[in-house]
Amino acid sequence: MKEELFKRLDDKKDRIVSIRRHLHEHPELSFHEANTKQYIVDFYRDKDCDVQTFTGGNGVVVTIDSGKPGKTLAIRADFDALPIKEETGLPFASQNEGVMHACGHDGHTAYMLILAETLIELKNQFTGKIKVLHQPAEEVPPGGALQMIKDGVLDGVDNVLGIHVMSPMETGGVFYREGAIQTGRSYFNVTIQGKGGHGSSPHMANDAIVAASYFVTAIQTVISRRLDPFSVGTITIGSFDGKGQFNVIKDHVTLEGDVRAMTEETRKLIQTEITRILDGIKAMFGVTYELDYQNDYPVLMNDEKLTDFVSQTLKDANIEEVTEVTRCEPQPPSEDFAYYAEKVPSCFFYVGAKPANGVFYPHHHPKFDINEDCLLIAAKSMGAVVSEYLKGSAN
Amino acid sequence: MKEELFKRLDDKKDRIVSIRRHLHEHPELSFHEANTKQYIVDFYRDKDCDVQTFTGGNGVVVTIDSGKPGKTLAIRADFDALPIKEETGLPFASQNEGVMHACGHDGHTAYMLILAETLIELKNQFTGKIKVLHQPAEEVPPGGALQMIKDGVLDGVDNVLGIHVMSPMETGGVFYREGAIQTGRSYFNVTIQGKGGHGSSPHMANDAIVAASYFVTAIQTVISRRLDPFSVGTITIGSFDGKGQFNVIKDHVTLEGDVRAMTEETRKLIQTEITRILDGIKAMFGVTYELDYQNDYPVLMNDEKLTDFVSQTLKDANIEEVTEVTRCEPQPPSEDFAYYAEKVPSCFFYVGAKPANGVFYPHHHPKFDINEDCLLIAAKSMGAVVSEYLKGSAN
Amino acid sequence: MKEELFKRLDDKKDRIVSIRRHLHEHPELSFHEANTKQYIVDFYRDKDCDVQTFTGGNGVVVTIDSGKPGKTLAIRADFDALPIKEETGLPFASQNEGVMHACGHDGHTAYMLILAETLIELKNQFTGKIKVLHQPAEEVPPGGALQMIKDGVLDGVDNVLGIHVMSPMETGGVFYREGAIQTGRSYFNVTIQGKGGHGSSPHMANDAIVAASYFVTAIQTVISRRLDPFSVGTITIGSFDGKGQFNVIKDHVTLEGDVRAMTEETRKLIQTEITRILDGIKAMFGVTYELDYQNDYPVLMNDEKLTDFVSQTLKDANIEEVTEVTRCEPQPPSEDFAYYAEKVPSCFFYVGAKPANGVFYPHHHPKFDINEDCLLIAAKSMGAVVSEYLKGSAN
Amino acid sequence: MKEELFKRLDDKKDRIVSIRRHLHEHPELSFHEANTKQYIVDFYRDKDCDVQTFTGGNGVVVTIDSGKPGKTLAIRADFDALPIKEETGLPFASQNEGVMHACGHDGHTAYMLILAETLIELKNQFTGKIKVLHQPAEEVPPGGALQMIKDGVLDGVDNVLGIHVMSPMETGGVFYREGAIQTGRSYFNVTIQGKGGHGSSPHMANDAIVAASYFVTAIQTVISRRLDPFSVGTITIGSFDGKGQFNVIKDHVTLEGDVRAMTEETRKLIQTEITRILDGIKAMFGVTYELDYQNDYPVLMNDEKLTDFVSQTLKDANIEEVTEVTRCEPQPPSEDFAYYAEKVPSCFFYVGAKPANGVFYPHHHPKFDINEDCLLIAAKSMGAVVSEYLKGSAN
Repeated sequence: MKEELFKRLDDKKDRIVSIRRHLHEHPELSFHEANTKQYIVDFYRDKDCDVQTFTGGNGVVVTIDSGKPGKTLAIRADFDALPIKEETGLPFASQNEGVMHACGHDGHTAYMLILAETLIELKNQFTGKIKVLHQPAEEVPPGGALQMIKDGVLDGVDNVLGIHVMSPMETGGVFYREGAIQTGRSYFNVTIQGKGGHGSSPHMANDAIVAASYFVTAIQTVISRRLDPFSVGTITIGSFDGKGQFNVIKDHVTLEGDVRAMTEETRKLIQTEITRILDGIKAMFGVTYELDYQNDYPVLMNDEKLTDFVSQTLKDANIEEVTEVTRCEPQPPSEDFAYYAEKVPSCFFYVGAKPANGVFYPHHHPKFDINEDCLLIAAKSMGAVVSEYLKGSAN
Repeated sequence: MKEELFKRLDDKKDRIVSIRRHLHEHPELSFHEANTKQYIVDFYRDKDCDVQTFTGGNGVVVTIDSGKPGKTLAIRADFDALPIKEETGLPFASQNEGVMHACGHDGHTAYMLILAETLIELKNQFTGKIKVLHQPAEEVPPGGALQMIKDGVLDGVDNVLGIHVMSPMETGGVFYREGAIQTGRSYFNVTIQGKGGHGSSPHMANDAIVAASYFVTAIQTVISRRLDPFSVGTITIGSFDGKGQFNVIKDHVTLEGDVRAMTEETRKLIQTEITRILDGIKAMFGVTYELDYQNDYPVLMNDEKLTDFVSQTLKDANIEEVTEVTRCEPQPPSEDFAYYAEKVPSCFFYVGAKPANGVFYPHHHPKFDINEDCLLIAAKSMGAVVSEYLKGSAN
Repeated sequence: MKEELFKRLDDKKDRIVSIRRHLHEHPELSFHEANTKQYIVDFYRDKDCDVQTFTGGNGVVVTIDSGKPGKTLAIRADFDALPIKEETGLPFASQNEGVMHACGHDGHTAYMLILAETLIELKNQFTGKIKVLHQPAEEVPPGGALQMIKDGVLDGVDNVLGIHVMSPMETGGVFYREGAIQTGRSYFNVTIQGKGGHGSSPHMANDAIVAASYFVTAIQTVISRRLDPFSVGTITIGSFDGKGQFNVIKDHVTLEGDVRAMTEETRKLIQTEITRILDGIKAMFGVTYELDYQNDYPVLMNDEKLTDFVSQTLKDANIEEVTEVTRCEPQPPSEDFAYYAEKVPSCFFYVGAKPANGVFYPHHHPKFDINEDCLLIAAKSMGAVVSEYLKGSAN
Repeated sequence: MKEELFKRLDDKKDRIVSIRRHLHEHPELSFHEANTKQYIVDFYRDKDCDVQTFTGGNGVVVTIDSGKPGKTLAIRADFDALPIKEETGLPFASQNEGVMHACGHDGHTAYMLILAETLIELKNQFTGKIKVLHQPAEEVPPGGALQMIKDGVLDGVDNVLGIHVMSPMETGGVFYREGAIQTGRSYFNVTIQGKGGHGSSPHMANDAIVAASYFVTAIQTVISRRLDPFSVGTITIGSFDGKGQFNVIKDHVTLEGDVRAMTEETRKLIQTEITRILDGIKAMFGVTYELDYQNDYPVLMNDEKLTDFVSQTLKDANIEEVTEVTRCEPQPPSEDFAYYAEKVPSCFFYVGAKPANGVFYPHHHPKFDINEDCLLIAAKSMGAVVSEYLKGSAN
């Protein structure tokens, strides 16, 4: 089946690119992907598959049933875009001002649609079922995966696979790693409340900017002194909202923070320590605080056995366009694919997408772009793994 | 002349209150006091005085010339209001939403108009000249005084007097102090520029919020360790504008600061030290900074001899409504009256204005109010000093 | 009496200098002034006065009773030295290695002995009594004054006077000020207890040096933000004892601090805030602390009426060697003379002692020296005030 | 040969323990191990090997030559002790007050002597040469390895092996890891120079304790913000020597720091950033600094191929007392074995030594102890690897 699959994908390469460009031109923000969802639903119209949409979100689940007994494998592609003003100058640049596919989800969806179409065409050649998870809202917590799981998309699913295209990685390469591969994340929002007053009389007020600044300096010690040096963790205060009048002592300040960790233990430790430091600031400066702390995407854990299977299959697949299948380092960002991986053994892997000229911009950059050759590689790589996984009597 | 002046002021007490209420209802922001200026100009229409207005601002200078040789005394009242939403619930509360006479300048102008009118009526009883300085824009640097001085209002002036009504001081009291009586002020705006990036990869970015927070903690040492403990100085960061996305490392932050000092040496010291600390932050964190540092209102210095004259005159004046004439402590806020005092020997003094029920709100508070009895006291006090100062042959 | 007193003092000028040099050569540390005490006691042997010594300390009180009814005036001179290695190179430099009269107490005692001797000679010329307080241990809390007061030296005393010679002030000048003239002081010792460990595993330990360093940065805000800018206060951490091995995380650190204030309110505020900040550090870093906080010398308050009397008397005295009698600024150091001033109205004033060449070293400096001309000035100044205060029928 | 080796080691088990206890009773500090060196030299007297000692240190190198051509394998054991007061209460506790074998080097030397003796007995059964490196001064930089290398001990050596007994690891286990396994280390000593003064006048001085405290808070950001979160690095200020008088502003402070890193890049980064922060402190507070920064032990890198050989050999060896041969995590401490590994491909591995009752104290703790069963395991493990490595024709 694999050769037939590759051949058909080769023939459809231009359609993948064309879909990707269409999506790139029409990006939509997380939780607001109504048109993209419709585009996906329309794509499957009159195809021999079951298409399910959800009231609670923009998710689309397509079931391809071989009709034969076997395992059920879910394959996931996300399709939301980012609140970024595109600066690529591409002919198919975003027509939705201030919104941009700057993370490659357009590519994920493009390759997945064509791969799904082809798997539908070949469905008599495998056993079991394929569930294609077209997932919205990966970029913004709580993310789209959580709602889809609540809506039951993992019912009966044995394993989940996903791909991310990566602009800093060489095109031609496919990359994998077992275990913890992307950080878990927490979000917090804390308002420190002091007491306003006139700049010339600090003793009559209680300066929230001063208290918050000492807080920022103190939390550095969580990473530098409380974390096992062999662990991975970060705390970023991404927002320090203390705008006011130069001569009025600020009565309150709101900070927003981002926490990353590669184990749940680290994530818990950081939460405990941040709270402890806020208690210290409260005692120290006589301010009060209100903290909203939310753990969102968990650490993304690739199942060891499944990852072995994926990497071995990819190495054996001899995909013409693939120049290397390599074990890579863990990746700093967080991914809501992690929620699937918490529920069933899963594997998330990477397809290199560095532009042909060798100059790349990181994900979420206004000039982010991918080498579109990566899309066929993604389709064939995922296709190869699916084929091997659901190899049926026809082979 | 003094008795006649007091008698006439007694008779006009209601008009003072009525003018004050009118002004209170129609407050205008600093540098935008067009209607108030017109109100003042209209007031003097057909009166026996010289009214001069300025193209460069909303200032109005009224010269009352006795026709006899003598000194020239300037008396100043300011008339701008503040960007505050009034919460007093007074029947004559501001009709200009978001703008409020929350510092008593309505009262200053009200008593001054009626006092000027009366002095015009009595001008044959004194010698020399009176220059009434109706000054706009006291609240916002660079202030209105500077422009009026540039426009020549102090030409030929021997001394300047001014009054501020004070809600925390008991009504009935008049208060004075020689030497440094109100702080000098500086303003600074500094942008600290780092490098943005993804929250999960701090080493690829350069966190401006962290650098700025260490700056805030470091400048505390300027006051605590570099200032002579017997000196007066403060640094307030009133604005820390670092609003951003929780998971994006902030590339820049803008701080605005307010500096107060009771001597020019202290003011200079603080400027030097803030710059030094910014250089330290730059070296320490590899950020850059852009600093705009402006000294605005100087330390307000009351001339010792003139203040002696004022306080002695007030003590001798036996104003019925005045219960005490007392030397007071220096006052934390800054005043652009200080610019006049830099040029000619001047005296700025205070008239208690605490509400009759004993509950007061500080100046610049949305519920700020004055005891209107203070207005007649202000008129009589200033009138008494003017009379004594310009005592002519008629007495 | 005054002229006779001045004449006799003129005649004894060399003896004052000679006593001063003897004392300078033989300095003794606070609470260990046994020889100096004996020297003083010996001086009064066979003189017509009552000499009282104390079991609880090295204090010597000499009562000179005119035999006539009248007031009792105490005059105080201190006589302890400092743990400083003298570097003056004077021919009469300290022979007690590591101990030095680097604050002028040798001069205080020298002038006082000769003044007392002369007052004994002239005691029929005044009324009431003089109590000469030769006080030990001024330099080290709790100080010698407290014990002398407990031992009853102020019983029946109406007022106390004292002089300090001042190397930074011009010789020839006498200086005074009413009200708060020298700071009150507190001492604290705090041990911050964390948990030791290996430098490579900070998470297994709890670094006391880090916690203590954040404490030092946080207490800067007490002065910069909690103190009224018009108040005077300082906090100095004079000792940060955290010596250890470079690669072992320090389990505890001991800090010693010095607090100064010009009002008791400020002193209390600082104590409250330091404790608050320690509570904050405890909560923040999970350390514990043990704090020993002691208020020692109070703010030295010169009685207004008595100070008026002293300054007026000095101005009227026409002492030949005195070139000015001037109101001065408050002085930063603390003085245990303040304990007398808490009990009875007192006045402490200053005699300029700047060396003739104009180059001076501050008090407590290894090269500190005084212009010995100041000693006769001190004797005459104190003598003039005593004479005027106890002026009897003989005049 | 392996079986014969194991049998002989079994027979000598008590001697290993007895040697270990003798060494434990007589510990000597790094660079002062004269008696231990003599003990080792004496041990080899009359044995069929070449013993070489060094003038520049206490190292002893024993060459066991099979007389047949082949590779040269070095095996290393260290023998210095620590400046720790023993609190184990063992019958063979240190008789050298304040010095203790608290890191297991007594055990290393004990097993190595007996192993060497046995290898000498069996030397006709292998090919090539064994060089036994008895190394002093592992605990104190610059360490003993560096001097031994300079003295030529690695000349002609193909590979080096070493073992550390580990009290936190289960007895019975042998543990290994390829690549970076122990941190590299740097040491720094920095004196921050301000200006002394009186506690009541901070503005006349420049407080070194304040500057140093801000330095300590600032360096936290090197780990928290400049380090790749996936890298390993620590900075510990183990000594903050700022002891002084509570009321004297400290003129200088000396800090000593310890830096750990798992790559040379991280080590360099930390050095650069510490220097940058010191420059910042200098600019910020107007202090000066003198920095002595020394990179000592490098990152310990286990050669991948050699480590594969060691772990495979150990797994195949079927040592009766060994319950597991397991890949372990990297270890935080630094090791001067790393210098050998820089020169020739090397492997350092771990033998579990947790006491039988399951309660262990970490290395360098006054109650540190090992399960002496680990010594035979160390001897057999090292013996097995040596045998396999130098397997000759006799087998």
